[in-house]
Amino acid sequence: MSSNPTVAEYVVARIAALGIDHVFGVPGDYAFPWNDAIEANDHVEWIGAANELNAAYAADGYARIRGAAMLCTTFGPGELSAINGVMGALAESVPIFWLVGLPSSQLRREGRVLHHMLRDGDYRLNAQICHQATVDSVELNPDNAIAETERIIDSCLTHRKPVYINIPQDLADMPVVGEPIVGVPLAQVPPKPSNPDQLRVATKKLKEALQGAQSAVALPSYLVARYGLEDKFREFAAKTGIAYATGPMDKAVASEADDQFLGMYVGIISTPGVKAAVESADVVIDFDVCFSDENSGAWTSVIDPAKHIVIGADFVRVGDLHATPVSMADALDALIEVSPTFTQPRLPVPSEETPATSETDLVSSAAFYPRLAEFFKPGDVVVSETGLSNLKLADLRMPDGVTFMNQPLWGSIGWATPAAIGAAIADRSRRVVLVTGDGSHQLTANELGVMGRYGVKPVIFLLNNELYGVEELVADTEISGHEYNKLAAWNYADVPAAMGCSDWYTAKVTSVGQLDAALAGEELRH
Amino acid sequence: MSSNPTVAEYVVARIAALGIDHVFGVPGDYAFPWNDAIEANDHVEWIGAANELNAAYAADGYARIRGAAMLCTTFGPGELSAINGVMGALAESVPIFWLVGLPSSQLRREGRVLHHMLRDGDYRLNAQICHQATVDSVELNPDNAIAETERIIDSCLTHRKPVYINIPQDLADMPVVGEPIVGVPLAQVPPKPSNPDQLRVATKKLKEALQGAQSAVALPSYLVARYGLEDKFREFAAKTGIAYATGPMDKAVASEADDQFLGMYVGIISTPGVKAAVESADVVIDFDVCFSDENSGAWTSVIDPAKHIVIGADFVRVGDLHATPVSMADALDALIEVSPTFTQPRLPVPSEETPATSETDLVSSAAFYPRLAEFFKPGDVVVSETGLSNLKLADLRMPDGVTFMNQPLWGSIGWATPAAIGAAIADRSRRVVLVTGDGSHQLTANELGVMGRYGVKPVIFLLNNELYGVEELVADTEISGHEYNKLAAWNYADVPAAMGCSDWYTAKVTSVGQLDAALAGEELRH
Ligand SMILES: Cc1ncc(C[n+]2csc(CCOP(=O)(O)OP(=O)(O)O)c2C)c(N)n1
Ligand SMILES: Cc1ncc(C[n+]2csc(CCOP(=O)(O)OP(=O)(O)O)c2C)c(N)n1
Repeated sequence: MSSNPTVAEYVVARIAALGIDHVFGVPGDYAFPWNDAIEANDHVEWIGAANELNAAYAADGYARIRGAAMLCTTFGPGELSAINGVMGALAESVPIFWLVGLPSSQLRREGRVLHHMLRDGDYRLNAQICHQATVDSVELNPDNAIAETERIIDSCLTHRKPVYINIPQDLADMPVVGEPIVGVPLAQVPPKPSNPDQLRVATKKLKEALQGAQSAVALPSYLVARYGLEDKFREFAAKTGIAYATGPMDKAVASEADDQFLGMYVGIISTPGVKAAVESADVVIDFDVCFSDENSGAWTSVIDPAKHIVIGADFVRVGDLHATPVSMADALDALIEVSPTFTQPRLPVPSEETPATSETDLVSSAAFYPRLAEFFKPGDVVVSETGLSNLKLADLRMPDGVTFMNQPLWGSIGWATPAAIGAAIADRSRRVVLVTGDGSHQLTANELGVMGRYGVKPVIFLLNNELYGVEELVADTEISGHEYNKLAAWNYADVPAAMGCSDWYTAKVTSVGQLDAALAGEELRH
Repeated sequence: MSSNPTVAEYVVARIAALGIDHVFGVPGDYAFPWNDAIEANDHVEWIGAANELNAAYAADGYARIRGAAMLCTTFGPGELSAINGVMGALAESVPIFWLVGLPSSQLRREGRVLHHMLRDGDYRLNAQICHQATVDSVELNPDNAIAETERIIDSCLTHRKPVYINIPQDLADMPVVGEPIVGVPLAQVPPKPSNPDQLRVATKKLKEALQGAQSAVALPSYLVARYGLEDKFREFAAKTGIAYATGPMDKAVASEADDQFLGMYVGIISTPGVKAAVESADVVIDFDVCFSDENSGAWTSVIDPAKHIVIGADFVRVGDLHATPVSMADALDALIEVSPTFTQPRLPVPSEETPATSETDLVSSAAFYPRLAEFFKPGDVVVSETGLSNLKLADLRMPDGVTFMNQPLWGSIGWATPAAIGAAIADRSRRVVLVTGDGSHQLTANELGVMGRYGVKPVIFLLNNELYGVEELVADTEISGHEYNKLAAWNYADVPAAMGCSDWYTAKVTSVGQLDAALAGEELRH
């Protein structure tokens, strides 16, 4: 960063210092100061998305690996195209710094009607709408930039949610006023401090609650991942021997390869034995799981309040005590300190035997998913789209060190394809495996071209049932085969080449033999 | 419609009775009552879009031909994906009935956290955001459905802007209470009545203002088209001999083949002679042109207030008089009645001669646009994307009866490709010619598959300069060749086939000879 940076240059450099060195976006004239600042910054690479919604989804996928992401869009059409992707990040607690350009303050004062606004000349409407998809927002100028950037970074990281950062075009190019702050990488940013008294009383209560317990089950949630506490949870589990279970939204946050892992806890559709194991335990330590419809088997996950401990991002609830602020990190340390060890029985791993098939059999779910389970390897990033496949994948055990991403609360189809490029850019050393449906893929397939452009090659399993299949399952009317669930008949294997992915291996497989041949090939095994 | 329709069935039938017999959308569980009602209605065809933004753009293109459109999306991700497209329709006064499904009122009462909402369980947020892209909104139930549907239709047609219609899933499937209203086709819906006194005084003032005028110029706007008054304007022009000019946003609203057409009036970038002709006329009759940056040569269209008459959708302004409500239809009738005839000189049509080229020359703008001008034929629908080509197309004279669509106020790139399918579905008898840039096309190219599925075949000119070109033009920094203006290198001619358009003719042309051969072929001349 130059010693006299513009507002845009300063903000980009300050956020990049957290260790975020890519920006997803689509350029636009109101956002040129951002675009130029990003181009001028040697530590940051611009990843041009096919459109803004895809950029937001990609930023979401990136942030799930790197802890946070940057997204940059222009005023009006740019930002409103992205809003659904950012709202998904808000719903699922994914931190995104959303940089947006505004018309120049000069033209605003003159009351000009500009492109990308309504004819009434109200330049505020777009921001008023978009900031609602974030946890906090700010309009910067040279004078407030340094202080407000600190405040907004703090909001983003405290809540692990998107924030909205706006600058009028003319002010963005003016030098920032004051002493630039350099900042530290995300991993070195300390969690919000706990109140020492609250932490003390919480620790005492946790100790009491756990002391007499014969059995306990932990429910590590997506928040454990968002606050970067996977290792601390692992330490806690290792020290106490506690069994744990997860919902689809929390999948693989803790190792599924360990025998302390019971399986999926999703109310009546839990892995066999898991519902009873969780609900009959003397204590349930719940890391603030989101018991939404899809993460609770339609609210059939029922935990007795008397034995329900909740460890939230910034609170601990035990019995009548609601201690706050207590950070999840401190609460985990407290648990590691005070928790006894537990030796309750494990559950058998459900067998995932591949049914006998002949080479010429058509690929069925029964044949496909066990093969997919075998295909996954430690360290993979698995990106799972909303739809039938996500229901199936929830039940497959992931190897150790797999990051599993899906979007069960917001559930916006089309998310997964761009999220996969975000994940692939976030860590080029890991294999990304995308599992998606044909309907979902059609929403955002134009992002394949972006994969080709930036040289990332996720393995993509596209499940072509020529339908919005899960909808046929959900529909409760008698009519089946709804016209509205049918799709355009794409030749999916030809799409990457048409979009410039010149050296991609693609294959359409319909028989088990063809599937096995593809799975065995070098192309997918990188 | 059955004699005892559900709320969803009733609303779909009532809107369809306006003559809107297609619905653009993507299905989703909260919207199943809408989806089912549409499927059950024999007068309405479902057009499944690749995603919701594309559906909104397609509805926009359809409404520009048919006078109004229906769009149907699901709660949360569905509607928020569409919002930018609907906001564009709001900006440019395009009427869209936006049907959205809400969670069941029962689950809301129980305070359940459901997919497609935030964890806080606030089911209102999505609607609160989305209704801001419309001129009016309503949440229906069986009791209010009949009255509120009339109110919302009236809002939509009065303002010619989108409206937002929400129904909780459970209530949507209940029978409507009261006597269903059948309604009449759009063309038979009378305009909002003028106040007779206001109309009388406006007519008198118009007469006075025009009486002594030696010269007058009319500026017919996009509103003339939105209110279906093209024929009335033509009658007015024929009777008075008045010269007229248009901005890019208003292009071809009145015939460009007539010698009363002066050319484009866009401030300092007007067709030569037009700025002077307009601004020196004794009277300017302005049909409420939107003098935004792009429609006024950056506010260099300057009309002397003393001779500036404005005919708005529901008002007439002459001198100090602001008469309202006076409908544009009535004001046009008044003008036809009281206006003298004018005989001021015409302007020569700028010559569009094709420069001499040899077959092997690369296709340049100079070679391309005159050929395009010759290619257009009477009755075509020309869909022009924001970007360099839109600037060029503004200057080409359209044959008589061409509908020209672009989006110069909202200016959301990617709009044109889906708008072209909307236009093509709206009237299968007309040829649709889409002119778009490579960057813009990449945002929404997945809609090509939908064209294939529904058997529409617009002629698509995709101008491949491997750039967001217009941005390079607009950028005021010294650096050129911005990384952020570069694009993924698609093989555009292969994309339709990959998306299932199996019988499409496509060609990549780089030389003038190839271009001429393609233009001469039967394939494009349907
Ligand atoms: C943006 C958005 N639009 C619509 C929906 C509703 N929806 C949920 S699942 C689904 C179908 C997914 O179909 P596909 O990807 O083909 O997977 P399948 O279930 O057939 O395996 C749809 C349309 C949604 N969740 N998000
Ligand atoms: C949704 C949206 N995103 C970004 C922009 C900013 N923008 C305006 S024109 C343009 C480039 C268009 O490029 P292309 O379609 O390739 O046409 P060209 O100008 O090269 O002919 C961009 C990115 C916009 N107007 N709308």
